Amino acid sequence: MSSARTITVDLGDRSYPIVIGNDLLGGGFDLQSHLASSDCLIVSNETVGPLYLDKLTAVLGDTAVESIELPDGESFKTVATVTTVLDRLVSSKANRDTTVIALGGGVVGDIAGFAAACYMRGVAFIQVPTTLLAQVDSSVGGKTGVNHPKGKNLIGAFHQPRIVLIDIGTLNTLPDRELKAGLAEVIKYGVIADTNFFTWLEENMPALLDRQAEALAYAVQRSCEIKAEVVADDEREAGRRAILNFGHTFGHAIEHCLGYGAWLHGEAVAVGMIMAAQLSGIGDSELARVRGLIEAAGLPGSPPAVGSKALLDAMGMDKKVMRKQLRFVLLSKLGETVVAGEYDQSRLLQILEAAD
Amino acid sequence: MSSARTITVDLGDRSYPIVIGNDLLGGGFDLQSHLASSDCLIVSNETVGPLYLDKLTAVLGDTAVESIELPDGESFKTVATVTTVLDRLVSSKANRDTTVIALGGGVVGDIAGFAAACYMRGVAFIQVPTTLLAQVDSSVGGKTGVNHPKGKNLIGAFHQPRIVLIDIGTLNTLPDRELKAGLAEVIKYGVIADTNFFTWLEENMPALLDRQAEALAYAVQRSCEIKAEVVADDEREAGRRAILNFGHTFGHAIEHCLGYGAWLHGEAVAVGMIMAAQLSGIGDSELARVRGLIEAAGLPGSPPAVGSKALLDAMGMDKKVMRKQLRFVLLSKLGETVVAGEYDQSRLLQILEAAD
Repeated sequence: MSSARTITVDLGDRSYPIVIGNDLLGGGFDLQSHLASSDCLIVSNETVGPLYLDKLTAVLGDTAVESIELPDGESFKTVATVTTVLDRLVSSKANRDTTVIALGGGVVGDIAGFAAACYMRGVAFIQVPTTLLAQVDSSVGGKTGVNHPKGKNLIGAFHQPRIVLIDIGTLNTLPDRELKAGLAEVIKYGVIADTNFFTWLEENMPALLDRQAEALAYAVQRSCEIKAEVVADDEREAGRRAILNFGHTFGHAIEHCLGYGAWLHGEAVAVGMIMAAQLSGIGDSELARVRGLIEAAGLPGSPPAVGSKALLDAMGMDKKVMRKQLRFVLLSKLGETVVAGEYDQSRLLQILEAAD
Repeated sequence: MSSARTITVDLGDRSYPIVIGNDLLGGGFDLQSHLASSDCLIVSNETVGPLYLDKLTAVLGDTAVESIELPDGESFKTVATVTTVLDRLVSSKANRDTTVIALGGGVVGDIAGFAAACYMRGVAFIQVPTTLLAQVDSSVGGKTGVNHPKGKNLIGAFHQPRIVLIDIGTLNTLPDRELKAGLAEVIKYGVIADTNFFTWLEENMPALLDRQAEALAYAVQRSCEIKAEVVADDEREAGRRAILNFGHTFGHAIEHCLGYGAWLHGEAVAVGMIMAAQLSGIGDSELARVRGLIEAAGLPGSPPAVGSKALLDAMGMDKKVMRKQLRFVLLSKLGETVVAGEYDQSRLLQILEAAD
């Protein structure tokens, strides 16, 4: 792949481009022109920073660049870590026209984005996601936030970036396990919105696991297109955007019961999608295709043995609860979702027993 | 005054009413219908809670009401206090459709509003301001946030309330010093935007200090009208809204040097307005009227002896700095403002010497 492709997230005066290409951080892309002014703070972590901080700084030209490297891991996605970023903005006397740039995976993006949302009631923000999960999911759509000891992503803000810059080349340094976790969200887009894409994934999973650039670029592009379209339709998740949470009610419960970080988010969502497909009551052949694609991606097909009771308790605190009534994103068939207030409760309990 | 008057803050789909009346908390106003659902968390403090919490609960009908009383004072306007409110929302299993209600002064409103902005990326928020300062300023316009050890209001969010309910009767329990501090912001509206109102204030200051309900209601109404008009024009302070910061660059510096809470915000702004009027270079007679009205309200006319150097340093961290260049809100004449990047630097230093 030689040239970049651009997708627009259409949000009126908050619209922004997602630019996808190979080796965009190797030069040739002018990121500086997307800054709010002549200074910025790059937020990265101790794993990604050493790999890409110098390259990112280079494409920022003569911008005054400050940077901070956070510890790596979901367990650091806390108010305390956001405070360290805010402290750094204060100590560097950053103004209202500064720009915060997230360089890393979803955790870095969530922390940096929430800090950008809160500093002086909101400064400019740019996403440079370096994991597949962040490229196809968390960097697009403006959700930022951190975990509370009692629940995931309970504290945060909607804060849209000015641009999402996706360099497919950064996936070459991504550990296998994280690549696969990212593929869980890629698969999700096929399951909820596009059976053609689902079929394409069935055919191209070996190429994706082999990190072939063309295949990865197309998977990221199609994922971002679907997400951008849904987000443009429902920025603040008043309705339709909830379909993006397919598999996440179960997935978040698994993460909560295991302790954040024991399983990767994508791994928990992978199992969660199978459980949600089971609860949906779709046909056996479609269910087998969902499970088959998830397992072909090397992702877990069964929940960890945390106990069904613990999972149910954990779901009581899920953000998708409305008026104390659990709501699930379910499938009417492969490629079509429905947000359901009603579901088969005995089937739910039966599905959860897989964790006993 | 028997009936309530309503002002609308016109912000498209985020528009909301400011309802002003006497004894609205005594019954007769249906606040329940403004809630997002059937439960809410009232955030108050240990001073205001005992006075009005029961009354507020009564006008909420059969709503499921939880409440939390914070310690009283600007020194508690911190991320740590916001966290206690968030913890309470989590422990009460509040959902995305809960409503946070601020009952108290500006500090309570800032903390409660910021917690509402951050909880699950934003839940509904209602302001019930009980100080004059909060009624005419901080409860209107959606600014929420807390202080950083190195600067005031550095961490926060824009989060508009659904309604601002102003019961003038609550001013009867307000200490004299706080009433006067609130009058500083009332005077500000006359100075920056309405010479007729300024003249009215000159004539009615004794009635206001005597807490006559009709006079207070009109002062609050006119102040809210001016603020609502400016906020509707520039919600996120990209331009014109900055005029509301008249006197605040100096005022914030004074508060910072004294330590938050030593002087009331309104007291610091009162002196700050005199200093800003001096820097503006308006005529002696207009300057004398500004100083005269501020002193007639029983507010300080001179800065505390914190040293001119300390004030200048503190202004270096002010939010209105753009590209390291100080910008002041100045007067072209009484009732008309200009945001100035250029000003008489020697005059500035001379004005600051009043603090030596």
